[in-house]
Amino acid sequence: MRTVVVTDPPRADVGDAEVLGKHGVATVHEALGRVGYLGPELRPAWPGARTGGTAVTVVCWPGDNLMIHVAVEQCRPGDVLVVTTTSPSTDGLFGELFATALAHRGVRGVVLGCGVRDVAELRGMGFPVWSRAVSAQGSVKATPGAVNVPVVLGGQVIQPGDVVLGDDDGAMVVPRADVARALTAAAARDEKEAATRAAFREGELGLDRYGLRDRLAGLGLEYVTHDEYERDDR
Amino acid sequence: MRTVVVTDPPRADVGDAEVLGKHGVATVHEALGRVGYLGPELRPAWPGARTGGTAVTVVCWPGDNLMIHVAVEQCRPGDVLVVTTTSPSTDGLFGELFATALAHRGVRGVVLGCGVRDVAELRGMGFPVWSRAVSAQGSVKATPGAVNVPVVLGGQVIQPGDVVLGDDDGAMVVPRADVARALTAAAARDEKEAATRAAFREGELGLDRYGLRDRLAGLGLEYVTHDEYERDDR
Amino acid sequence: MRTVVVTDPPRADVGDAEVLGKHGVATVHEALGRVGYLGPELRPAWPGARTGGTAVTVVCWPGDNLMIHVAVEQCRPGDVLVVTTTSPSTDGLFGELFATALAHRGVRGVVLGCGVRDVAELRGMGFPVWSRAVSAQGSVKATPGAVNVPVVLGGQVIQPGDVVLGDDDGAMVVPRADVARALTAAAARDEKEAATRAAFREGELGLDRYGLRDRLAGLGLEYVTHDEYERDDR
Amino acid sequence: MRTVVVTDPPRADVGDAEVLGKHGVATVHEALGRVGYLGPELRPAWPGARTGGTAVTVVCWPGDNLMIHVAVEQCRPGDVLVVTTTSPSTDGLFGELFATALAHRGVRGVVLGCGVRDVAELRGMGFPVWSRAVSAQGSVKATPGAVNVPVVLGGQVIQPGDVVLGDDDGAMVVPRADVARALTAAAARDEKEAATRAAFREGELGLDRYGLRDRLAGLGLEYVTHDEYERDDR
Amino acid sequence: MRTVVVTDPPRADVGDAEVLGKHGVATVHEALGRVGYLGPELRPAWPGARTGGTAVTVVCWPGDNLMIHVAVEQCRPGDVLVVTTTSPSTDGLFGELFATALAHRGVRGVVLGCGVRDVAELRGMGFPVWSRAVSAQGSVKATPGAVNVPVVLGGQVIQPGDVVLGDDDGAMVVPRADVARALTAAAARDEKEAATRAAFREGELGLDRYGLRDRLAGLGLEYVTHDEYERDDR
Amino acid sequence: MRTVVVTDPPRADVGDAEVLGKHGVATVHEALGRVGYLGPELRPAWPGARTGGTAVTVVCWPGDNLMIHVAVEQCRPGDVLVVTTTSPSTDGLFGELFATALAHRGVRGVVLGCGVRDVAELRGMGFPVWSRAVSAQGSVKATPGAVNVPVVLGGQVIQPGDVVLGDDDGAMVVPRADVARALTAAAARDEKEAATRAAFREGELGLDRYGLRDRLAGLGLEYVTHDEYERDDR
Repeated sequence: MRTVVVTDPPRADVGDAEVLGKHGVATVHEALGRVGYLGPELRPAWPGARTGGTAVTVVCWPGDNLMIHVAVEQCRPGDVLVVTTTSPSTDGLFGELFATALAHRGVRGVVLGCGVRDVAELRGMGFPVWSRAVSAQGSVKATPGAVNVPVVLGGQVIQPGDVVLGDDDGAMVVPRADVARALTAAAARDEKEAATRAAFREGELGLDRYGLRDRLAGLGLEYVTHDEYERDDR
Repeated sequence: MRTVVVTDPPRADVGDAEVLGKHGVATVHEALGRVGYLGPELRPAWPGARTGGTAVTVVCWPGDNLMIHVAVEQCRPGDVLVVTTTSPSTDGLFGELFATALAHRGVRGVVLGCGVRDVAELRGMGFPVWSRAVSAQGSVKATPGAVNVPVVLGGQVIQPGDVVLGDDDGAMVVPRADVARALTAAAARDEKEAATRAAFREGELGLDRYGLRDRLAGLGLEYVTHDEYERDDR
Repeated sequence: MRTVVVTDPPRADVGDAEVLGKHGVATVHEALGRVGYLGPELRPAWPGARTGGTAVTVVCWPGDNLMIHVAVEQCRPGDVLVVTTTSPSTDGLFGELFATALAHRGVRGVVLGCGVRDVAELRGMGFPVWSRAVSAQGSVKATPGAVNVPVVLGGQVIQPGDVVLGDDDGAMVVPRADVARALTAAAARDEKEAATRAAFREGELGLDRYGLRDRLAGLGLEYVTHDEYERDDR
Repeated sequence: MRTVVVTDPPRADVGDAEVLGKHGVATVHEALGRVGYLGPELRPAWPGARTGGTAVTVVCWPGDNLMIHVAVEQCRPGDVLVVTTTSPSTDGLFGELFATALAHRGVRGVVLGCGVRDVAELRGMGFPVWSRAVSAQGSVKATPGAVNVPVVLGGQVIQPGDVVLGDDDGAMVVPRADVARALTAAAARDEKEAATRAAFREGELGLDRYGLRDRLAGLGLEYVTHDEYERDDR
Repeated sequence: MRTVVVTDPPRADVGDAEVLGKHGVATVHEALGRVGYLGPELRPAWPGARTGGTAVTVVCWPGDNLMIHVAVEQCRPGDVLVVTTTSPSTDGLFGELFATALAHRGVRGVVLGCGVRDVAELRGMGFPVWSRAVSAQGSVKATPGAVNVPVVLGGQVIQPGDVVLGDDDGAMVVPRADVARALTAAAARDEKEAATRAAFREGELGLDRYGLRDRLAGLGLEYVTHDEYERDDR
Repeated sequence: MRTVVVTDPPRADVGDAEVLGKHGVATVHEALGRVGYLGPELRPAWPGARTGGTAVTVVCWPGDNLMIHVAVEQCRPGDVLVVTTTSPSTDGLFGELFATALAHRGVRGVVLGCGVRDVAELRGMGFPVWSRAVSAQGSVKATPGAVNVPVVLGGQVIQPGDVVLGDDDGAMVVPRADVARALTAAAARDEKEAATRAAFREGELGLDRYGLRDRLAGLGLEYVTHDEYERDDR
């Protein structure tokens, strides 16, 4: 791995990132064609956390948070820090002191492929964090890594400057080039979902609304009464 | 697998299901002889969720929620929807729109062998959900499965019409034929636990209350002082 | 395994244990030189739980809580009960009735290598519990084990009488012999962290505060612009 | 749970079970409509193990092999012993002494929801075992369970007398009522696969053999050259 | 996700891929600077498997192998097929019939983010496969995905045409642009390791050969006798 | 953690360790009273590996094998190297070059709480290794740890100089003070098992040999015919 800090990568618009954050992870994930979700292993450190910002990426050695210190300096208002490790680790590389430094710089949250600590304090600060684990296990500052290089987290590639979102459903990435499309599609989806919600509240069925009955017949689905089913089963 | 929808299976009494839900999972599980618990992997989507209803069962293909749409139509007031997949999946096959449709039909909650999304919205609605994961990962509607056939979830068989309960301790099944026995035994157990609780508050020991001292002697348990133990250890 | 109950082991001072509990797990873990953490698998049964007390240790057979009954009698005010099993188990060996008995004796909390049940009731009582799982799965009282012998939990040795702490970041052990050192070091660390927090709020960087810039240069870390990086990558 | 031993349940034909065992797990699973597989967690104790027999089922308490002793007496030539536990356990409840007793009775193998030990000896004996783990962890004989009641293993219901198969791909159940259908369908599938194998060896494509090209077009799949794809991506 | 098949992506030289396969995963991983390893979850289907080829990438829906059929047609001699799923799945999407078709086309092996079946037959054919699981669970052919787009597997990005290697230590990717560097560095590393091996056989220590003694002193490592250590510990 | 190397700890007799290794893990574990097993997660790198020796213990930082280099110098003929990490790691900290150096010193095997690489070469050398994972992921040499201090692995405490055994069933520790007892008890157990094996080969049942029938009656186990069971179930 090249041990390098890339300065001032181009970023998506931080206002756009905020709007996407408000649409939420499930909506934007669907709007983009069901891509970009970072998986169910990344959980919010406290319920109700929600954010959207531009990625500053970090690669750390397991059990070593040296590069997070390096990355803080690269953060700007509207950023979300994204921390990965070169191999799986649940150690608590990030805690309340880092959050204090980042909050000062206008950073909107952190997404950690490793563990987080000081959860009670982070909740108290209202600083949003998603992580693979909660862990008090401390770290050294011995081995260099990289800042603002492309990283992989939860099976997704995150480029510095991409939009990263998080809420109670987890976290996701929107590639910088897809932000405009995501904004349009998410707004359309929200509108469509509002109409569906209203229809469902009135008792309309998805089977009818989405025209699934014909497809089901074509797939050979049968309807049988309980008595018929029991009789066949004998 | 037979791709079939079984209509109108006989159900346990929904009033009985509600009473069992109030007794709670731990009590009913013990009352039935320590059977029926769906395991620690099924967690409530929000703390404080609690329910009891009659099972409508669904079998989905992983990553595919087509059959949940089919199942909604089969639900009646007092039901709890139980969703399984043909192989393990954490994808978020269920979210707030489904919950809206189900709430309209008087459904009391959902138990998912897969993932759930829109957790913040579900908490807001007060709609109870238990699931193996929280995941925004979306699904297709391509492959048929089954509704109201017997399913296996968390190592337990659930027949359509069985009672399904959930609370902060997880979820469980009470077979329809065991509901009457469960009601009697759970009430007895609650009464017994109330007496034990009162005794424990006064300082009585389980060793005495449950007559364990003799058994322990028979099992060869010794009592030694710390000094004696240290001496033996050398 | 020797089936034995060791009575009246020497304990750390319960006042010291309380003070360490207030410092919290992350701080004391760092203060001791990054040792003693019981790992990210032990989670509080409810958010905000916090405690510090002296360990009464228990070894149970999986699925069997007989020895917890034995251990209750050995508990004194200021203790924390620590339950392990001879092989991995998530069963709910501990619940609200045990908590009632322990609260009567002045016990400050429980740390379980297995599962816990009655989570809603425990939250209502404010009784602190850390566990590997939440599970309603019940237990038998058939096989003897041991009380107040050294145990291993989360990769750490816990001797009876050691201090055990827990908060939202998990749980940890402070060996009795290290309590005095832990108190001094934790107080020093809290003071140091307060100064760092103040500095970070003013915008000072960890890179400067911890003198990391020189080390990074020595480790060969480069800074390049985004354009330079893209060019090299071609 | 009812602590009961059910004697002499009706069994599928042991000759049929042997034939299904020779077809193998993947073939029979497909032939039955992709049902009955016990999941990837059950692995053979040694490579090349293969069997087919009629199930004698056991329910044990975790860490307790008392009921396996009870079950041995219920076994007949052509049986396969199926061991489950009331909650998850990897302990080695089964080893070479049990295998010796079972081999004497003509038992064809064992499928364990828990762990196995004496793996080297079992390989030497050629006695087939599938298990969730290899573990030397020993067990007690303290708590009763059941023999020849319906059990759940790997998400499947196994009734005593059902056919159980195992090979390098894992293990599966064929319900007694489905054995005749399984024999016919597996033979047909083997024949069909032989033809497909021959065609694939000559270079025919699955796309053509299974008529997938039209379906793919209907699903909107595009073919683009690498250059076109790169251009779109910009 | 765009449902697309990219035809004829540029590939690394298949002779180079073969040479890297002979160097082996551990050597090439180190030679490249400790990057590219696909993680310990991908295991060979049979011991002794070893390969190196150029990647043809596939994205499947979980439980659906439709796109593998599409991908076979895109394979050329010297390729290695790399299969991913849109969300985690252990289902056996690949087996002996696919291997027969691929062997006909000169494909050198398969790396699966999902499960494999027909393990005994694959071992018999000597066809190398790495996978996350062995599973007989069958699949449908219902939902389109993509072929020869960039994929993520085991935390690494794999572009079509990259070199993929596998042996008993797992599998790895060498980006096409890094192949020349990898060849040089792997040869150098093999040579260096041969010299080290010879020295270690003579009794030289790594401490001396790598000049670690000074570093250790600088890091504060102490040497104490057992008696001194015991004394300090009291 | 104190960064220290303890030199020349007292060791158990290496001849005794060899004898225990021949008895095997399952036998010695039972003989000692079912203690000391390091759990099912530690697996041999190749089937048939078997050893017994005296422990030299190592504590490494995750992803860092510096201390293994330090430990090699502390090894003597008859030792087994035991490597732990300060937090969980599957990285391949150990491979063939280390094995070469250790073989020169007469070391009998290695037990790793982390990963191993060069598995094919280790099998070729016949050098026994047990590990939590196989992984080619490489390591740095940056952070100091400890050698020959007490460690915890697989839930067991290992002191330097204790006996460590491994075979196909996993690995275990025998405390130095228990070696004499283990030798006697293992020999007795082997003898007893030989008699049981002979009896089982003749068809005697464990129920009779271990006198379990009376206990089962006392525990309330019923025997019912299949017909009676079916009738009750209705």
